[in-house]
Amino acid sequence: MRIVQCVPNISEGRDLEKINQIVAPLKDKEGFSLISVEPDANYHRTVITLIGDPEKMIIPLIQFFENAKNLIDMNTHHGEHPRMGAVDVTPFIPISGITMEECVEYAKSLADHVSFMFQIPVYLYAKAANTLERVSLPEIRKGEFEGMKEKIKDPLWTPDYGPHEIHPTFGVTAIGARMPLIAYNIDLNTKDEKVASSIAKAIRQSSGGFQHIQAGPAFLEDKGFVQVTMNILDYKKNPIYRILETVKMEAKRFHVDIMSSEIVGLLPKEAISDSLKYYFALRDQVFDKKMSLSEMTNYAKTDLMFRDFDETKIIEYHVNRGDE
Amino acid sequence: MRIVQCVPNISEGRDLEKINQIVAPLKDKEGFSLISVEPDANYHRTVITLIGDPEKMIIPLIQFFENAKNLIDMNTHHGEHPRMGAVDVTPFIPISGITMEECVEYAKSLADHVSFMFQIPVYLYAKAANTLERVSLPEIRKGEFEGMKEKIKDPLWTPDYGPHEIHPTFGVTAIGARMPLIAYNIDLNTKDEKVASSIAKAIRQSSGGFQHIQAGPAFLEDKGFVQVTMNILDYKKNPIYRILETVKMEAKRFHVDIMSSEIVGLLPKEAISDSLKYYFALRDQVFDKKMSLSEMTNYAKTDLMFRDFDETKIIEYHVNRGDE
Repeated sequence: MRIVQCVPNISEGRDLEKINQIVAPLKDKEGFSLISVEPDANYHRTVITLIGDPEKMIIPLIQFFENAKNLIDMNTHHGEHPRMGAVDVTPFIPISGITMEECVEYAKSLADHVSFMFQIPVYLYAKAANTLERVSLPEIRKGEFEGMKEKIKDPLWTPDYGPHEIHPTFGVTAIGARMPLIAYNIDLNTKDEKVASSIAKAIRQSSGGFQHIQAGPAFLEDKGFVQVTMNILDYKKNPIYRILETVKMEAKRFHVDIMSSEIVGLLPKEAISDSLKYYFALRDQVFDKKMSLSEMTNYAKTDLMFRDFDETKIIEYHVNRGDE
Repeated sequence: MRIVQCVPNISEGRDLEKINQIVAPLKDKEGFSLISVEPDANYHRTVITLIGDPEKMIIPLIQFFENAKNLIDMNTHHGEHPRMGAVDVTPFIPISGITMEECVEYAKSLADHVSFMFQIPVYLYAKAANTLERVSLPEIRKGEFEGMKEKIKDPLWTPDYGPHEIHPTFGVTAIGARMPLIAYNIDLNTKDEKVASSIAKAIRQSSGGFQHIQAGPAFLEDKGFVQVTMNILDYKKNPIYRILETVKMEAKRFHVDIMSSEIVGLLPKEAISDSLKYYFALRDQVFDKKMSLSEMTNYAKTDLMFRDFDETKIIEYHVNRGDE
């Protein structure tokens, strides 16, 4: 069974009725689930999460693009988040039984359809990018909707699909494929932001640390402690246990303890099991590959110190619900 | 007092008398010391280490280049190590009281003199490089002495100084400036090279680990154990303690202990003191900044597990000998 996560972002985060109309084609479909629809009024943007068989997603996604085109006018859109189109970006993320290359093919198939049917210019991005300039989404989006009118005429920014001018109300869109990204925070037993900052520096790529880690300090006012807050861009190369243990090691010099850690959003089962294997090996305990998601959740709460965590945070929960 | 380390490599590693004649101008000079002359017959190459005031090194280095030009004929040179000139490479490395920019200026001054006086083509490399292609020494050296005859005619490879053709017997040379590099090995209590390989992968840049670490496994036949062998390219960003502790953490899952570690060649005092501070902080022990090199050596042997280590391995030992 081939499973992807697909996370389209639309440039509407305030009018819930409109949002409902736009995502309607993605509801109650066979082969994939609509996991969440998260509008943000400040950003004026909604993040939509689908999980399932990408083959089954393409036609509903085309209808979803059509609705967004009919209901969103970028000329009157203003929010905190940078944006360039009514559907701003659509990444396909391999979860299980599927390669990145196949995800790129689905991205291209969707791009081909929406550009042809609705005259929307499409840039392929991330792992689907055809040029180095298009790997980074912020690079493509620079100038935003207003700037794209001119930018699209630059030969460097000729769209990969569709007309060589923006759609007058939709703008342009990016479709691509990328690795799942894990938003992970580690709670420190201190209010001292300098400690979190020093630890973040030790682990993050930009200051010489691990290659696939973006990290910084954060003070949680309501909770009264600091966090090292991070994105793990490649959990296979920088597994959670390695980051957690390195943070523990660095925190020791400040005599600060790690109290807990948290996952924001979803994460793939493999990201947990790969890390649990480390702790199982320490205990000389056999790791049962057929462990249930709820068992895995319990181990993650103790070994990886996850708080506020349950199996619905694991991507596979939404896929195999019947099997559990 | 401005101190650099300068490490010229010459393409002669067998004829000790010849080597002695070539390095003669570097001996017993005021302002800097000739720390070591290490010939390798297999490589047919000798690594020479100078420490001291770069201002005082320039004229003796010019004489050393002249000797190498007169005594080495690259047309009959064959060894295991890649090479392109009689003096193959000369890096200036900032140690104390001097910036990288100043080291680049000394590299340029030496390049200017030897190219003009002896008609030797010079490529500036590493931090002194004028183009991206010339940052990496192996990139410049590709094709070696034999290939440089043609390569030098390519506009991409026009030398930074000197004639646009190779010197018929000397070849070409690279002069530059770079950070001190620490060659560091960690001894594992196992013969299993897979363990060393797995740990090396976890920490090295090329497989997603720390940004400034090159690492691999090595089996020491005579000693009967494996090592994680590495270069620390920037000890300020990837300090020794962090690498050692991360290796300990990774080794735990294999139930393998770290027995000891070793420094190959020299390292700056700061690389030790920065790392000792971590262990002092763990013990709530005040770190005395005025600690003597011999005291520091003792702490390094226990905290950092250095074996076969004494204060002569610390660069500053050779600089401040009178003060100790």
